[in-house]
Amino acid sequence: MGDWLATLRRKADLRERAGLRRELRPRAGDDALVDLAGNDYLGLARHPRVLEAAAVALDEYGLGATGSRLVRGSTDAHTALESALAAWLGAEQALVYSSGYLANLGAIRALCGPNTLLVSDAHNHASLIDGCRLAGSQTVTFAHGDAADAARVLAAHPGRPAVVLTESVFSVDGDLAPLAELHAAARAHGALLLVDDAHGLGVLGPRGSGGVVAAGLAGEPDVIVTATLSKALGGAGGVVAGPAALVRHLVDTGRTFIFDTALPPAIAAGVGAALDLARDGEPLRAVLHQRAAAIRDTCRAAGLAVTDPAGGVVSVEAPSAEQAWAWAGACRDKGVAVGCFRPPSTPDSRSRLRLTVNAGVPAADFARALEIIVEVRP
Amino acid sequence: MGDWLATLRRKADLRERAGLRRELRPRAGDDALVDLAGNDYLGLARHPRVLEAAAVALDEYGLGATGSRLVRGSTDAHTALESALAAWLGAEQALVYSSGYLANLGAIRALCGPNTLLVSDAHNHASLIDGCRLAGSQTVTFAHGDAADAARVLAAHPGRPAVVLTESVFSVDGDLAPLAELHAAARAHGALLLVDDAHGLGVLGPRGSGGVVAAGLAGEPDVIVTATLSKALGGAGGVVAGPAALVRHLVDTGRTFIFDTALPPAIAAGVGAALDLARDGEPLRAVLHQRAAAIRDTCRAAGLAVTDPAGGVVSVEAPSAEQAWAWAGACRDKGVAVGCFRPPSTPDSRSRLRLTVNAGVPAADFARALEIIVEVRP
Repeated sequence: MGDWLATLRRKADLRERAGLRRELRPRAGDDALVDLAGNDYLGLARHPRVLEAAAVALDEYGLGATGSRLVRGSTDAHTALESALAAWLGAEQALVYSSGYLANLGAIRALCGPNTLLVSDAHNHASLIDGCRLAGSQTVTFAHGDAADAARVLAAHPGRPAVVLTESVFSVDGDLAPLAELHAAARAHGALLLVDDAHGLGVLGPRGSGGVVAAGLAGEPDVIVTATLSKALGGAGGVVAGPAALVRHLVDTGRTFIFDTALPPAIAAGVGAALDLARDGEPLRAVLHQRAAAIRDTCRAAGLAVTDPAGGVVSVEAPSAEQAWAWAGACRDKGVAVGCFRPPSTPDSRSRLRLTVNAGVPAADFARALEIIVEVRP
Repeated sequence: MGDWLATLRRKADLRERAGLRRELRPRAGDDALVDLAGNDYLGLARHPRVLEAAAVALDEYGLGATGSRLVRGSTDAHTALESALAAWLGAEQALVYSSGYLANLGAIRALCGPNTLLVSDAHNHASLIDGCRLAGSQTVTFAHGDAADAARVLAAHPGRPAVVLTESVFSVDGDLAPLAELHAAARAHGALLLVDDAHGLGVLGPRGSGGVVAAGLAGEPDVIVTATLSKALGGAGGVVAGPAALVRHLVDTGRTFIFDTALPPAIAAGVGAALDLARDGEPLRAVLHQRAAAIRDTCRAAGLAVTDPAGGVVSVEAPSAEQAWAWAGACRDKGVAVGCFRPPSTPDSRSRLRLTVNAGVPAADFARALEIIVEVRP
């Protein structure tokens, strides 16, 4: 491996030439960019009650959890959050992880036996794909958002235990999976349905309870919900919610749960406060949906290829990776933060701007930002 | 999968009968147990300067990072922490993850080409094992702590690019890997060495810079260091440190970096403050090593089978899983928190108490706790 660094540098050059170089752009606390890039859909990350709850827990418990959940890391803040999440999601129990990524890795492995078939939407998030890979079970992809294709895959493997995997609101294009149809297809085959509700939680459903509740699937014994706590809930961490027997299994055997330091108690407490606000956040959700529609309509009127948002995510196609990058840069130069999604962060070879709604952004700033995005388009 | 919950319940019953049931025991903020279970080695998780730095960043940035590092999650707090970590570890660059688990998954995959051989210590942490599995490369285990065996494995696969993987201080038994010998074996073969320094950071080496620096391997171009920021640094998160070209590669292509919400800025800031304190923490390290030796000597004098601690981790054998569980329970009833490690959390079939040193525990409490542990032994 003497030349491993030379190899890495060569690969970096190739990416650079293909317009695929990525750059970390740290922001200061008083960063003045208008946020159409983050996932703080309801603007709760800076809500005074959220910050207050986190500050109290910081003083109470210290900075970190000081250990894994089973050894020393479980606190009353974690337990309270888990109870609140389970109630909100209509699940028997909920288990909090340090990230949504590790929640997905843990949940998928827990559902796999020696002969399990994983049936995965073609647009699924990296953490779901890695979860399939880590589980080591045969994985078959179905056409994006196509429940009939999922049913076809299941039918092609009769008698196999199977798990259908999907996001609710997809992270790049912001469209909604046909959850009820996927569940019907799964149930007809005796398969389970795992839904990553990361972008649906706080955004869809009664009291913001997410895409799974909205689809009428809350508490179904063959449905498992995962999510991050870092989007509408403004914090960090992940959750797996489902039947108590699954949570028991994850606590006893789940490697990404057992062998990982717990979420900091202050973050758990802050997320708990955000959950209370999100539950009562109908006015914020109204703003969110109205703004997402405004992005779609404005971009469409400007002749841009734009997705139809189910939640707070809208995707606008760019002609190329380079032009997506230049477009995002031009927005930034004019004071607007947007997401620039290029391969391998897109489910296909096309590059996009990903625009996300933050209901906490002042209305005038949002309107001006939208004008700028259209104005500086390639 | 109609009977999947019945299957999970049956497995839970089997674990219960084998003494392998695990239980979450949430603690309150004013929990009065003496801590010999956590990984807050230097007692920094509650240090006023750490809490102050986190509180300031909480107000400045809000609760969460609101996005992945590349989209919206990078803040000045992350960058400052990365610079400080790189300087401390003597590495060209450092990259912060939301957990040590995801740092290991990302680092290992980045080091693997199509034909790479992974050569992994038999006692390695779950996150390293899962990293090998997720990378999909052929993995061969070498005898725990045996550099000659690692060399033998490498020699059996001539001409293959390879990566040797080890912890520095092992998480269960607290012993130290022969890092210099492993590096010599790796280099002789042209292989890389990846060291998970989670339990060495802040504990070993000049100014607490860790096991890799202590072994004279800082900045070597064929050495990659990973660690959690949740142990001696009292917070959460993980880091990969090494050549700049590797960090560039991880930023551009690393899935567990790109597709994961960033560590909360408040946690990054708190860890940064803890790093400053750890660097100047010789008195705390003196206490830590003296207490680890005291645990060893006291347990040995009581006729218990105990490991020889390189850092803050000491492991004491229990006769069985059930008796380990009962022993830990008896300690807790007398006011002492200890780790109870049973399969699959042990590298072999034996169960142990894992005792860890927290230099922040008052001396009298520590001494009394040690007496209790011996007193209530099976």
